[in-house]
Amino acid sequence: MRVLGVDPGLTRCGLGVVEGGIGQPLRMIAVGVIRTPVDDEPALRLLSLQTEIDEWMQQYTPDAVAVERVFAKANIKGIMGTAQASAVPMLAAARRGLPLALHTPSEVKAAVTGNGRADKAQVTAMVTRILRLQVAPRPADAADALALAICHVWRGGAQNRIQEAIARQQRVAR
Amino acid sequence: MRVLGVDPGLTRCGLGVVEGGIGQPLRMIAVGVIRTPVDDEPALRLLSLQTEIDEWMQQYTPDAVAVERVFAKANIKGIMGTAQASAVPMLAAARRGLPLALHTPSEVKAAVTGNGRADKAQVTAMVTRILRLQVAPRPADAADALALAICHVWRGGAQNRIQEAIARQQRVAR
Repeated sequence: MRVLGVDPGLTRCGLGVVEGGIGQPLRMIAVGVIRTPVDDEPALRLLSLQTEIDEWMQQYTPDAVAVERVFAKANIKGIMGTAQASAVPMLAAARRGLPLALHTPSEVKAAVTGNGRADKAQVTAMVTRILRLQVAPRPADAADALALAICHVWRGGAQNRIQEAIARQQRVAR
Repeated sequence: MRVLGVDPGLTRCGLGVVEGGIGQPLRMIAVGVIRTPVDDEPALRLLSLQTEIDEWMQQYTPDAVAVERVFAKANIKGIMGTAQASAVPMLAAARRGLPLALHTPSEVKAAVTGNGRADKAQVTAMVTRILRLQVAPRPADAADALALAICHVWRGGAQNRIQEAIARQQRVAR
């Protein structure tokens, strides 16, 4: 099973592709960050993001997509851009009929470190260890994207198969 | 000048196409509402919205797109879906190189009724009068989408030409 994890954002969007299964060692296939210029129109930033994510989908052909669930925080202006950015990988998955899951930050932290309140350094350290990387992934958005993909593989299995069945049924019903 | 106005939402997304210019009478070309099932996966709802908006773009070939600027309100869960939904017309415009503007609800109300705090009934009444419609557009999301398009035509002109020039320059720079 190959999963694309996406930590959505307009200024920095983390992407990570992980391959493996429950009880199998996980392998990092790719990691990166998409940046779009703050001075660009929001619509152009979304389009840049879409172009890049489409290229990742084509190049790495994931079986599933895991996106961080966006919550409202203090920075309302930023959160709207993040919510809009999160629509891009969701659409990319839906267009290809791939199962998509939204995981909360605390679900991801708990899956990777055992602690739902782990800090960024702990998440990065565990991602580096789990994927047996020589160098810790930077910036934090890239590590978060890999953590999302790891979380998805580990939480996967039965839950994914149910979601796939639902998605299939919905496609047939359309 | 033909403008597609979009009042974004997953449960109801209002769409309205208006044609005209500053100092010319405005004409309604189309109005409608896209609804997506609440029980569907969010990604599938975004995809349905994208499919419908793409059809509108193809059928009505607008020169510009006006989308309501989304603000955080009390209903945080709903606002995230609305923010994600707003990404769909933004992407549709950017992909076609069309000028896109985000107007706040109070800008739209002020443009259409002269009062930035007008209620929904006042907005609907003025939209009906401005477009010389026999029947008031329903539901409110459809009237709001027409109001957005009207607002865009009336605020347009110089501002749009500047935005178009910027968009062209940015496309060349890419």
